[in-house]
Amino acid sequence: MQEFSNADQKYMKRALELAKLGEGRTSPNPMVGAVVVKDGKIVGEGYHQEYGGPHAEVFALEEAGTKAVGADIYVSLEPCSHYGKTPPCAQKLIDTGIKRAVVAMVDPNPEVAGRGIDMLRKAGIKVEIGLFKKEAQKLNEIFLKYIQSDYPFVYLKKAQTLDGYIASKTGDSKWITNSAARLEGHKLRHRVDAIIVGIGTVLADNPSLTARLDNKEGVDPLRVILDPDLEIPLNAKLINQNSTANTLIVTAENSDKADLEKRDELSKNKMVEILSLKSNNKYFDLREVLKSLRQRKISSLLVEGGAKLSHTFLKEDLVDKFYYFIAPKIYGGSDGTASFCGKGPELMSDAVNLKILEQKLLGDNILLIAERK
Amino acid sequence: MQEFSNADQKYMKRALELAKLGEGRTSPNPMVGAVVVKDGKIVGEGYHQEYGGPHAEVFALEEAGTKAVGADIYVSLEPCSHYGKTPPCAQKLIDTGIKRAVVAMVDPNPEVAGRGIDMLRKAGIKVEIGLFKKEAQKLNEIFLKYIQSDYPFVYLKKAQTLDGYIASKTGDSKWITNSAARLEGHKLRHRVDAIIVGIGTVLADNPSLTARLDNKEGVDPLRVILDPDLEIPLNAKLINQNSTANTLIVTAENSDKADLEKRDELSKNKMVEILSLKSNNKYFDLREVLKSLRQRKISSLLVEGGAKLSHTFLKEDLVDKFYYFIAPKIYGGSDGTASFCGKGPELMSDAVNLKILEQKLLGDNILLIAERK
Repeated sequence: MQEFSNADQKYMKRALELAKLGEGRTSPNPMVGAVVVKDGKIVGEGYHQEYGGPHAEVFALEEAGTKAVGADIYVSLEPCSHYGKTPPCAQKLIDTGIKRAVVAMVDPNPEVAGRGIDMLRKAGIKVEIGLFKKEAQKLNEIFLKYIQSDYPFVYLKKAQTLDGYIASKTGDSKWITNSAARLEGHKLRHRVDAIIVGIGTVLADNPSLTARLDNKEGVDPLRVILDPDLEIPLNAKLINQNSTANTLIVTAENSDKADLEKRDELSKNKMVEILSLKSNNKYFDLREVLKSLRQRKISSLLVEGGAKLSHTFLKEDLVDKFYYFIAPKIYGGSDGTASFCGKGPELMSDAVNLKILEQKLLGDNILLIAERK
Repeated sequence: MQEFSNADQKYMKRALELAKLGEGRTSPNPMVGAVVVKDGKIVGEGYHQEYGGPHAEVFALEEAGTKAVGADIYVSLEPCSHYGKTPPCAQKLIDTGIKRAVVAMVDPNPEVAGRGIDMLRKAGIKVEIGLFKKEAQKLNEIFLKYIQSDYPFVYLKKAQTLDGYIASKTGDSKWITNSAARLEGHKLRHRVDAIIVGIGTVLADNPSLTARLDNKEGVDPLRVILDPDLEIPLNAKLINQNSTANTLIVTAENSDKADLEKRDELSKNKMVEILSLKSNNKYFDLREVLKSLRQRKISSLLVEGGAKLSHTFLKEDLVDKFYYFIAPKIYGGSDGTASFCGKGPELMSDAVNLKILEQKLLGDNILLIAERK
């Protein structure tokens, strides 16, 4: 493997830091950061700030101006080679007179996939690839899943007691976790394109499912409600609040209960969209739901509510990352709402094994971020 | 508060370290360590090694020999003033010619309770009290509970999945936690005087409930089985194994099922003792059970098995310390054995709030040590 100097590492780290500033606003595009370095000094920095806006390289090169001639550029993702929402960045690097490009990872987008690097090399620019590749992949895991599969990246969140309950026997869940944990939950909502809950959660909790961040504008995700029989109340908070994000209600094509009149009424709400999908005895094929979300350019989805919905996502192996918020309290009974509602395995050796990726203390609450082993 | 020098702190820390070496062997006596210091050098060290054996001060003073004349002594607990299994240590300090005694905490044992310190002071020894008092109290929390109440110190242990299950729907629990966590569980067994389980656990798992430590002799605790109807099989592992510890079977006085013949048969086993207690509809008053264990000089008890038994201990607020072993796996159903079997509260705000005292990573398992807030 290529050896990179300490200076190279420092600049690529900075490019990754910059990339992260776009979190929650670039989807379904990746987060990208770029740093232009001339004579051992940073002369330009940039990051992809929002979907449809200029790419990281454009900002960095513009800031560098004429200093970019003969300079090195560090980019967390291969510069693009195609005319999309913006002209190709690879061409801009060539036109500006960049001498050397260090690239963390090749863009897996089939429209790029090495072509950007080819363009640069053909133009005589020295290209080195792979510095902090793992970090870059981790940063854009959502984008990678999106571009390489038919589904969005799926997060499953649980906020529970030590003994695994998400609500008491009366359905009470206020509050299991502390405010620091709830804020972290809102950050997760800000980061994803969509949240999915079952109609049961809507009927029980009447949630708003917005991203409420402190002193910071949160981007509300699309709310996806699995509601085969169109039971959502017309006055549900979800569809009657001040939010920039829409609500997608998924109903069963073949439901004999989904009322046409209610459908018309809901259609008047500009923030509501109704999607009819096949269902089997009130259960949707989650793969079909995910595909149809992917087609709507939803690159990431958070499974928030419903012990039954969680159970199906888990059982069908559709979860990419688990967020476990655990409060140091014991419900202490066997009659609460368990975190997964449905059938478990016969043997403990058939339980779902997780790999803990990160463990954080949020006050006295614990956050475990994990993926399936 | 008294100011202590860095040297004082160093020696008392050492005394506490020494004390801990007696862990698991001094019960119901406290763990105590002592350090004799002359001209800035340690000239004698000792600790209470086992119940009935010499006290820490005796070992330390014997090692110091004539160097103890005019020396300082650091003791983690007030020297005793009464003739018990051994002559009073306070007198020995006086006789030896100790000049100054630094004592971490007063002995709460009503037979001592300041009298040792009085003896020393009357003899002209300078006594300073309170250095690392909290640490000393924590070290001997079992002894403190034992001496100050009618009950032993109660530990409750759970070994569970992330979603709070201690067994699958078929009762399978092998293995939820990893070997490092199980070893830690055996260390806990070594530390306590007794383990309590319900007969359900014996019938389901046929456990041996011994302290199995690596390369180290574990002290097996007394096994206490709540068995109202004397259902324990004569060939149960518990009562047919090579162990130095007895099994105490608690049966219901008024049981119409507890078979006299079986009772006779069990009585032939020298490792078995049968205790008859009142019961209410097969449920014992746990306070009565704890009192009768305390009378048998059981200073610490581990609640290991049975989701029902755990539930009662929790509900009756009889747990002093919780040990939660959590494996990074999800059972993923609502049909497993929950960690507490019984009724939970109506509202989450009435759940049992814990204060996490310690959090350890055991490989990829998590150990939380906590107490009720």
